[in-house]
Amino acid sequence: MMRNIKLTLEYDGANFFGFQRQPHHPTIQEALEKALSKFFDRKIKISAASGRTDTGVHAAGQVVNFKTDSDRELAKIQNGLNALLPPQIAVKAIQKVPLKFHARYSAKLKTYEYQIWNHPVRSPLHRVRACHIPHPLNSRKMRQAAKMLIGSHDFRSFCAANRALRLESKEKNTVRTIKRFEIKRTGSLIVIRVEANGFLYHMVRNLVGTLIELGAEKIGLSDVQKILKARNRTAAPQTAPAAGLTLLSVTY
Amino acid sequence: MMRNIKLTLEYDGANFFGFQRQPHHPTIQEALEKALSKFFDRKIKISAASGRTDTGVHAAGQVVNFKTDSDRELAKIQNGLNALLPPQIAVKAIQKVPLKFHARYSAKLKTYEYQIWNHPVRSPLHRVRACHIPHPLNSRKMRQAAKMLIGSHDFRSFCAANRALRLESKEKNTVRTIKRFEIKRTGSLIVIRVEANGFLYHMVRNLVGTLIELGAEKIGLSDVQKILKARNRTAAPQTAPAAGLTLLSVTY
Repeated sequence: MMRNIKLTLEYDGANFFGFQRQPHHPTIQEALEKALSKFFDRKIKISAASGRTDTGVHAAGQVVNFKTDSDRELAKIQNGLNALLPPQIAVKAIQKVPLKFHARYSAKLKTYEYQIWNHPVRSPLHRVRACHIPHPLNSRKMRQAAKMLIGSHDFRSFCAANRALRLESKEKNTVRTIKRFEIKRTGSLIVIRVEANGFLYHMVRNLVGTLIELGAEKIGLSDVQKILKARNRTAAPQTAPAAGLTLLSVTY
Repeated sequence: MMRNIKLTLEYDGANFFGFQRQPHHPTIQEALEKALSKFFDRKIKISAASGRTDTGVHAAGQVVNFKTDSDRELAKIQNGLNALLPPQIAVKAIQKVPLKFHARYSAKLKTYEYQIWNHPVRSPLHRVRACHIPHPLNSRKMRQAAKMLIGSHDFRSFCAANRALRLESKEKNTVRTIKRFEIKRTGSLIVIRVEANGFLYHMVRNLVGTLIELGAEKIGLSDVQKILKARNRTAAPQTAPAAGLTLLSVTY
């Protein structure tokens, strides 16, 4: 009988060219499908992932699903995959889900984390998960902007430019609802967590790019409002680097 | 005029064969002396390091000193070295110190951190800094033992076997004073911090090895007392892996 199986993955994306399979470059999807195919001794492709993380982006709770008619015990599948996967990837949890479950379309909420190492000197111990910003950032101001962005807004200004163009032609909905947007500073480390019902392409990195400009006092709170209202990518500051980003969790 | 300069270093030791220079393998000392020699345009060797971290051991506050008759500004030396060093190593702080300062002999206190990822599944995002122990550890018991070990004791049972032999022949003092020994659990991550006036070779990793046995309930608190009193390395459980260890700071 066909089963639909949900995997929760953790990975260090530093040495991968993102989640999605592509020719000639190592990707998370390729490593996972290779392990799945080896474990089940037949070619297995995942049906869906909650989203495609970019090159260098990490995950503590990426979710994928795949279908199989094998009746192997779930714990054995998990252990088998973990033994076959490289040390940068692990299956944290495994679960049987209804056949109609789709890792992407069934997702209700997603949470991302963005880490900034905010100190004049780079931190070798934080370099894999945090982006280095050497000039001082005013995290109190960043927190005010984050609070202002909570709620339902048209985030078109924070959608990757090439995607926004495609979106316009398709008249797609660029309204998203941010439920939580928290910024904590512990010494030199700034940890940003944002939870929403969905994210446009590059939305987190574009929001963080704007928060960094605000924290550096290059723009003010009213400018953030203006950028949001412009509904135009060219209004917003540049995208923050991929390395600081981690997909924390997906809620279904 | 000759100046004695103290550098505080942070490094990710994962891809180095420890601190101390050795032929045919990359080491922290080699990378640092290469950067120093390039910056000052003459061969420079460091005079001393607070201690020699092993292969795979990290540092957030390793201290070294070197001598130079150059009168270059300290901030320029720091920036120059950081530009020349690989991303795994950074000079966090630089300071002029009296000529008699010696990074090893002048040290008063040292603090080490040991991280354990205590979960049935390994954590790709913690794999560089934490050692993975899949079976449950009772951190409350580990904390009781740590408390018991605070104070001045003969730690010969926790000194690397080959060193202990050499020590015996030299009748060296193996008494050390642990000032602080803390164990915190946050979810699956156990963070151990131990501060002492000095450490025997492999002492932290041997203490942690014993705490892991205790946490797994393979030995009891009274066994830890017996191991300490035996003053014999063979009495203690095995050395914990290097990857979990970080030299946090050195006080002068």
